[in-house]
Amino acid sequence: MSEQFFSNVEKIKFEGENSKNPFAFRYYDENKVVLGKTMKEHLRFAACYWHNFCSTGFDIFGEGTFDRPWIQPVGNQLELAEQKVKVAFEFFEKLGVPYFCFHDVDIAPEGATLQESHDNVTHIANIIEKEMQRTGLKLLWGTANLFSNKRFCAGGATNPNPDTYAYAAAQVKHAMEITHRLGGENYVLWGGREGYDTLLNTDLAQESEQYARFLKMVVEHKKKIGFKGTLLIEPKPQEPTKHQYDYDTATVAGFLHKHGLQDEIKVNIEANHATLAGHSFHHEIAVACAEGIMGSIDANRGDMQNGWDTDQFPNDVAECTLVMYEILKSGGLTTGGFNFDTKLRRQSCERDDLFIGHIGGMDTMAKALLNAAAMIEGGELADFVEKRYAGWKEDLGQSILKGEQSLESLAALVHENNIDPKQVSGRQELLENIVNRYV
Amino acid sequence: MSEQFFSNVEKIKFEGENSKNPFAFRYYDENKVVLGKTMKEHLRFAACYWHNFCSTGFDIFGEGTFDRPWIQPVGNQLELAEQKVKVAFEFFEKLGVPYFCFHDVDIAPEGATLQESHDNVTHIANIIEKEMQRTGLKLLWGTANLFSNKRFCAGGATNPNPDTYAYAAAQVKHAMEITHRLGGENYVLWGGREGYDTLLNTDLAQESEQYARFLKMVVEHKKKIGFKGTLLIEPKPQEPTKHQYDYDTATVAGFLHKHGLQDEIKVNIEANHATLAGHSFHHEIAVACAEGIMGSIDANRGDMQNGWDTDQFPNDVAECTLVMYEILKSGGLTTGGFNFDTKLRRQSCERDDLFIGHIGGMDTMAKALLNAAAMIEGGELADFVEKRYAGWKEDLGQSILKGEQSLESLAALVHENNIDPKQVSGRQELLENIVNRYV
Amino acid sequence: MSEQFFSNVEKIKFEGENSKNPFAFRYYDENKVVLGKTMKEHLRFAACYWHNFCSTGFDIFGEGTFDRPWIQPVGNQLELAEQKVKVAFEFFEKLGVPYFCFHDVDIAPEGATLQESHDNVTHIANIIEKEMQRTGLKLLWGTANLFSNKRFCAGGATNPNPDTYAYAAAQVKHAMEITHRLGGENYVLWGGREGYDTLLNTDLAQESEQYARFLKMVVEHKKKIGFKGTLLIEPKPQEPTKHQYDYDTATVAGFLHKHGLQDEIKVNIEANHATLAGHSFHHEIAVACAEGIMGSIDANRGDMQNGWDTDQFPNDVAECTLVMYEILKSGGLTTGGFNFDTKLRRQSCERDDLFIGHIGGMDTMAKALLNAAAMIEGGELADFVEKRYAGWKEDLGQSILKGEQSLESLAALVHENNIDPKQVSGRQELLENIVNRYV
Amino acid sequence: MSEQFFSNVEKIKFEGENSKNPFAFRYYDENKVVLGKTMKEHLRFAACYWHNFCSTGFDIFGEGTFDRPWIQPVGNQLELAEQKVKVAFEFFEKLGVPYFCFHDVDIAPEGATLQESHDNVTHIANIIEKEMQRTGLKLLWGTANLFSNKRFCAGGATNPNPDTYAYAAAQVKHAMEITHRLGGENYVLWGGREGYDTLLNTDLAQESEQYARFLKMVVEHKKKIGFKGTLLIEPKPQEPTKHQYDYDTATVAGFLHKHGLQDEIKVNIEANHATLAGHSFHHEIAVACAEGIMGSIDANRGDMQNGWDTDQFPNDVAECTLVMYEILKSGGLTTGGFNFDTKLRRQSCERDDLFIGHIGGMDTMAKALLNAAAMIEGGELADFVEKRYAGWKEDLGQSILKGEQSLESLAALVHENNIDPKQVSGRQELLENIVNRYV
Repeated sequence: MSEQFFSNVEKIKFEGENSKNPFAFRYYDENKVVLGKTMKEHLRFAACYWHNFCSTGFDIFGEGTFDRPWIQPVGNQLELAEQKVKVAFEFFEKLGVPYFCFHDVDIAPEGATLQESHDNVTHIANIIEKEMQRTGLKLLWGTANLFSNKRFCAGGATNPNPDTYAYAAAQVKHAMEITHRLGGENYVLWGGREGYDTLLNTDLAQESEQYARFLKMVVEHKKKIGFKGTLLIEPKPQEPTKHQYDYDTATVAGFLHKHGLQDEIKVNIEANHATLAGHSFHHEIAVACAEGIMGSIDANRGDMQNGWDTDQFPNDVAECTLVMYEILKSGGLTTGGFNFDTKLRRQSCERDDLFIGHIGGMDTMAKALLNAAAMIEGGELADFVEKRYAGWKEDLGQSILKGEQSLESLAALVHENNIDPKQVSGRQELLENIVNRYV
Repeated sequence: MSEQFFSNVEKIKFEGENSKNPFAFRYYDENKVVLGKTMKEHLRFAACYWHNFCSTGFDIFGEGTFDRPWIQPVGNQLELAEQKVKVAFEFFEKLGVPYFCFHDVDIAPEGATLQESHDNVTHIANIIEKEMQRTGLKLLWGTANLFSNKRFCAGGATNPNPDTYAYAAAQVKHAMEITHRLGGENYVLWGGREGYDTLLNTDLAQESEQYARFLKMVVEHKKKIGFKGTLLIEPKPQEPTKHQYDYDTATVAGFLHKHGLQDEIKVNIEANHATLAGHSFHHEIAVACAEGIMGSIDANRGDMQNGWDTDQFPNDVAECTLVMYEILKSGGLTTGGFNFDTKLRRQSCERDDLFIGHIGGMDTMAKALLNAAAMIEGGELADFVEKRYAGWKEDLGQSILKGEQSLESLAALVHENNIDPKQVSGRQELLENIVNRYV
Repeated sequence: MSEQFFSNVEKIKFEGENSKNPFAFRYYDENKVVLGKTMKEHLRFAACYWHNFCSTGFDIFGEGTFDRPWIQPVGNQLELAEQKVKVAFEFFEKLGVPYFCFHDVDIAPEGATLQESHDNVTHIANIIEKEMQRTGLKLLWGTANLFSNKRFCAGGATNPNPDTYAYAAAQVKHAMEITHRLGGENYVLWGGREGYDTLLNTDLAQESEQYARFLKMVVEHKKKIGFKGTLLIEPKPQEPTKHQYDYDTATVAGFLHKHGLQDEIKVNIEANHATLAGHSFHHEIAVACAEGIMGSIDANRGDMQNGWDTDQFPNDVAECTLVMYEILKSGGLTTGGFNFDTKLRRQSCERDDLFIGHIGGMDTMAKALLNAAAMIEGGELADFVEKRYAGWKEDLGQSILKGEQSLESLAALVHENNIDPKQVSGRQELLENIVNRYV
Repeated sequence: MSEQFFSNVEKIKFEGENSKNPFAFRYYDENKVVLGKTMKEHLRFAACYWHNFCSTGFDIFGEGTFDRPWIQPVGNQLELAEQKVKVAFEFFEKLGVPYFCFHDVDIAPEGATLQESHDNVTHIANIIEKEMQRTGLKLLWGTANLFSNKRFCAGGATNPNPDTYAYAAAQVKHAMEITHRLGGENYVLWGGREGYDTLLNTDLAQESEQYARFLKMVVEHKKKIGFKGTLLIEPKPQEPTKHQYDYDTATVAGFLHKHGLQDEIKVNIEANHATLAGHSFHHEIAVACAEGIMGSIDANRGDMQNGWDTDQFPNDVAECTLVMYEILKSGGLTTGGFNFDTKLRRQSCERDDLFIGHIGGMDTMAKALLNAAAMIEGGELADFVEKRYAGWKEDLGQSILKGEQSLESLAALVHENNIDPKQVSGRQELLENIVNRYV
C-alpha cells in the first residue's frame, strides 16, 4: 500500500457557505462560537471504524464494491489490521473529526481463543494509542461486538446458554477496559442479537432477567475499574432479529426504571433506528431528554420507503434542526457526540466518496446547529409552549402536581364552578411556519 | 321501532364443526370443558356498545351505511338512548356473550353540563342494570370517553389546561363509580388523545408528570370506593394523534415501574393496536405475560396492508392459537376477557351482519382455545423451551442470576476453561411445523 | 353571519424573507419572474373547497372542532351552501390563490333525486360564476364525488350493480359539464371507492373492464362537449378501501396503455398518496414525467410515522425542491397546478389557522421553485446525469436502442472484445451535497 | 465429504395427518388425486439452489452459521461446485420435489473471463444433466444472476453503461440456452438491481427504454433457439435498491402492455415480494390471474413486522388456501410451479433443518390445495360472487360493456327511471366465516 491511501485528498477545510469545493466544509467551522461554545465542542463529531474500514460494501444480494485492500479472506490478519489503523487515522485526521468509535472486532482479528482475541485487540490498541497521541484524536466510545460471530446467533446477554453469556461478559470486560485505557468518554451496549427470531423458542421473562443482571455487572465493573465515562444502550427495534428488546428509548427507559438503573445508563440514539421503530428521530431525542437519559447520537438517516437500516449520511437540515434544538434546550451533549454510523451506498465505490459523505453529514449537522441556536435565541417556540402550559404553574395545576387533589376534589371543583373547557388552537401550522423561518 | 330489532335472528346455538348454518357456532360450546374450565369461563367473551350501536358505519371519506334508527342528529336523545339499550341487550342475549363493555358516552347523551351528562349516564345505567338482571349479562369493563368531545382535542390527563384535566378526572370518577355499581370486573383507561400531534407545541416531561398523577388518583379512588376490579391501560401507538404515550405494552410496563404502579394497573391489549405499533399480537400478549400485567384483550384484527385501525373481526385461528397458548401457559385470564372491539366493514349493512361477524370471531377464539389446550397437553413446545434454557437451572446459570458473578469472575471462568460456545439450532422451522399440527 | 367571516385577516401580501408577520408571504411573490415566467404562472396555486369549507375537523375518534357555522345537520341546506360560497371566495381572494377546486357535493347539497342534486349544483354554480367574475379567480379542476354517499360504498365505475354505474356516469356527466361551463382547466377522477375491501367478494377482471369502459365514456363525452381541459386520474393505493385500483402512477400508466388511453388521460399526483403507496413524492412525479402523463399536483404531505392520509400542509422545502426540479426539467405544468388538498390539524380550530396553513404551504412551494430554478441554472445535476449515460448516445448504445442488436450479437461483442465492465461510483452522496447547496 | 451429506435423513414419505415424525409429510401425498390431477401435478414443487446450497447463513450483521463445507473463500472452486451438485441432488431426491431452480452463478464459479464463466456453467450443467437423468428431477426454471457481481451494482439491463448491458445480455443468452438444454420449463428475469438508489443520478425514461429493448431481445432469442418454456418477470418493489422497476404485478402488467409484450411474458410471484410492495400475497396472485399473466410462484413468506425479505418457509395454511383457490379457479398452473425461494433462519444451523423447513412448506401448500379444492367443490364463494355481479350479465350491464352506452345515455336512463341505487351488504364477514369452514 502506498504512503497515503487517500492520496488525492488533503485536510478538509472550512470555506464557507458559497464554496463549491466538494472537499470543503460550508458550515462546519470548528472554532466558530455558537451560544458560548465552539462548534467542535457542541457537535463532538466522531467517525466510525466499522462501516468505513471493515466493510467491502457487500449487501445481502451482492458482493463488495469498495476498494479496501486490507480486507482479505486469507493472509496475516494482524498485519492487515495494522494497515487498517494507518488508513483509519489518515482518514480521521484529514476529515478533522475530533473523535472516533469502534467495536473490539473492528480493530483486530479474532484469535483461536478468547485470550488470543484479547491479545490482538490489545496489540492494535497500542498502535491506536500512538496514533491518538500523534493526531490528538479522542475516543468517543468503544464497544464489544456480541452479534457478528456465530456463537452469538441466539444473543450474548440473553443467550439460552450461560456459557455464551459468560463469553459475552468476558468480551465486554475487555472492551470496556480497552475503552477506559484509551480515554473513551462512553461505553456502548448494542443488543443486535438480544431479542428473538421466534417466540416459539423463547422465554422472555428468563432472558429479561439475564439481561438485567448483565447490565448490573457492567455497571459494577465500570465502578470497579474507575471508568468515568457514560454507559449507553443503543435502542433498535429489529434487524437482524425479528424483535430486539431495546426496541426504542421509551422501552429502554422503562427497563432501566424497573431495574433501578435509570441513573447509571443513558441512551445512544440512532436516527435510522428511530424510524425503524415507527418514530421520528426528533421523537426519540425528545423522549430521551424528557427522561433525562440523553447520552449520545448515531447521526445517520434511513429511507422512509425502505424497511431496513440503510445508515445513510444525514442530509435533512430541517429534521436535524429540530433534533439540535431539543438537545440545546436540554443543555447540550456532555460526554456524548454525533457519531456517523453511516455507510456509503454500494455504488459509491471511489475512495474519496468516504470524505464526501462525511462532509455532507457534518455540514448538515453544523447548519442544523446554527439554525437551532437561532431558534433558541428567537424564542418563539419556547414562548408558545410556556404559555400553552401556563395553567400548570398556577394554583390548580400546582396542587394537582403536588398530589393534593383527588378525582373527588376535582369533580367537586368542576361541578361547583361549572367548568366547561373549550378547545384551543394548538397552532401547529403556525409553529411549523416559524420553524421554516430558521431552516 | 318494532318489538325486536333483529327479528330474523334467534338465539345463536352451538351446532358443531360441520354446521353450515351461518347463525350457529361451530366451535364455541359454552359448557364444553377444556383443561378443567368451561369455554365460557376461559373466554369470557364480551361485545361492545360503541362499534355495534353507536356507529353508523361512516368513515373519513363517506357517510354511514348502517341501519341504526336510534342514531339521529336531532330528537330526544335520551329516549333514543333507551331504545339503544333495548336493541343492545337483544343483541347480547341472542348472541350469547356473557359480558359487555361501554364508554360513558356510548350509553347516554352528553348534557348541557357535566352534571346533566352524569345524570343521563345514571338514568341509562338504571335501565341497563335491569337488563343485566333480566338476562344475566355482566359488565366486563366500563370506561370514560376522553377523546371524542372537542374539549379533549389536546388530551384529557395530558391536556395543557388543568381545567380540562379536572373535567377528565370528574368524568373518570363517575364512569368508575357506575362501573363499580354495575359490578364491572375491570375499569379501562384508553388514552386516545393522550399523546401529541406535534412536538413543537408539546412538553413531554410535563405531560408525563400529569399523566402519572392522574393514574395515581384513579388508583386512590378505586381503593376509596372499594372497587375490586382491575384497572387496565390500553396501549395504542398512534391514531388519532401522531403519537400516543401508551405506545405498546413494554412502554406501559416501563411507565408503571417508573411510577411504582406496576402492581396496580394491568394492560388491555388490542390485536390491531399491536400491529400498528409494529408488533405481532402474540408479541404483545407474551410481553404482558412476562411482565405480569396481562389483564384483558380487545379481540380484533388489523389489516397488514393498511396503516390504520380497521378493527376487523378476528379470523386467523393460527395466530389466535398462539395468543391463547400464551394465556393458558400463564394461568388464563382472571378478571379480563375477550372483548370484541370490532366493527363491521362499511359495506356490511345488513342488520344480521352484526351477528355473523361476532359468530366468526367467537368461533375463531374457541377453536384457538381448543388448539392451544392440545398444545399444552402435547407439551412439545414447552419441553423444547425448557431444554433450551436448561443451563440456567444449573450451577453457573443460577449463580449468575443470584448476582454471585461479575464480569471478572465470568471472564476468569472462560479463560480457565477455554469456553468456546458454538451455535445451536433454534429449530424455528421444526417448532412452526409442530404448531401447524395443532391448528 | 357577519359581513366578513375572516374579519381579522386582510389580503395576504408578500413581505420578503425576513418578515415575521404570520399573515404575509416570505417567498411567494406572484409577479416575480423565475426562468422566464412569473411565480403565479409556474405554481398555479389552488385552494380546495372540501377540507376548507366542508369539514368540521372531525376524525374517526372525535367530533368536529372547527368553527364552520354553515355546516348544520338540519336547516335549509341550499342557503347554507350559499353562505359557504361567500366565505370560500372571501378566503380565496384574501389568500391570493388564482385557482380553486371542488367536488359537486362540496358546493351544493344532494337533493331527493339526482335531478334535484344537479339543480342544486347548477344553482350554486351560478353564484360561483359571479364570484369568479368578481374576483378573477379561476377553476383549476372540478370533479364528481363518487365515494361519500352510501350508494357508492362498493364503488361507482367498479360497482357490482350496473345501476350504480349508471348513476355515477350521470353524476360525472353533470360535474364535467359544470366544470366546462366554469372554465375549468382540468377534470379529475379520484377512485376512492374503486377498489376492494375483500377479494372474497370481488371480480377483479370484471371491475377492470367496467372501469376501462367508464374512462372511455368520459373521454368521449369530453370531446362531445368540446371540453379542452385535461382529464386526470388521481392515484391512491388504499384508504378508505383496502386496495384501490389506481394504486400509483406506474399502475395508472400501465392501465392507460392497456386500454389505449395514454394520450387522453394524465395523472393528478398527491404527495400523501405517494407515501401511502410506498413511494417518495419525488418518485411519483419522476415516473409521471418519464411516462409523459404529468398533469397536476395535490400539494400536501403525509406523516411518515402514520399510515393514513393526514393531508398536512407541505413544509419540507428540500423535498419540494426536488419535485419542482423534476417538473421544471420536463417543461413545467401546463393545465395543471399545485392544489392544496390539505387539512388543518384537528386542534387548529381558529378561523385564521386556515390562512396560516396555506401561507406556509405556498411559501414552501415558492421557495422550492426558487431553489429548483437555481439548480437548473447551476446545471451540476443535469451534467452528471448526462455524462453517466453518455454511452447510450454513442454507437453501441444507439444501435441497441434502435433494435439492431440481439442477445447473440451482444454476446459476440463481449467475447470478442473481452468486455469486462467495472463498477463506477454513482456519487449519490456528492449529488446530495450539491442539492443541499440549493435548499 | 462423506458418502452422504444428509446421512441421518432418509427419503421423506407421506405418513398422514396424525404423524408426529418431523421427517414425514402429513398432507403432501404426491399421487393423491385432487380435482382430477395428482398433488404432484398441481403443486409442481421446486427447491432452489441458492438459499439451500450457496449461502452460509450470514446476514448483514453477522457471519454464516451453516455447515456448508463446499463454500470456501479459497481452493478449487470448480471441484467445490461439483461437490455441491452431489449434495443438492441428494437433498432434492430425498425431499421428493420433482423440480429445482438455479441461477448460473449458483451452480458454477465465475471465471476470469465471461467465456470461462460460461465454460464453468456448462461443465457443471453436464454433471447436473446426469443427476437429472439418474433421479428423474426436472428443471422448473433457470436464470442469470445480474445482481451479485459488483459490475452490476448499477443494474444489468438498466445500467448507464452499454457495455454492462451487453455483458448482461451475453449472460442471459447463455443461461437461457443452458435452461433450454436441461429442459427447463420456464426462464426467469429478476431485476434485483434494475431500479435506482437515488433519482438524482437516474434517467428513468432512458432506463425504461433500455429495459424494454432488453426484454424484446430475450423474447427474440427464445424464439430463435426454439425454447418453448415461459418467460417470467419476478416483481419486487425494492431491496437491494431503493426502488425496483418491476415493483409489483400491476406495474409489470402495465409495462408489458406498453411494449406489446403482454402475450410473451408472465410473472413469477413471490409471497414476500408481495408484502414488501404493500400487497397481500393473495392480491398479487389475483391480479396476475385477472391479467392473464399468472406464471409461477416463489412460495415463501415474509414477516409483517420486518421490512426486508425474510424468505421464510410458508406456514400459513389459511393464506395459502386463498392463493390456491385463486389458482385453481383460473385453471391451475401450467409451466409454473411452487418454488421454495426460502431460507432457513440463521439459527437453524443443523443440516436436517433444511428438510424440516421444506417439509413444513410442502405440507402447508398441500393442505392449502386440499382446502381450496373443497372450496371449489363447495361453491359458496363462487356463487356469491356470481350473484353479486349478475347485473352485468343482463341487458344494461352487457350494453355498457359492449360500448353501446355513453355518459349521456346513462344519465338519461337514470333520470327517466329515477334510478336511486341503495347500498347492498358485501357480506365480507360471512364470506370469511365460510372460508374458515375450509381451513
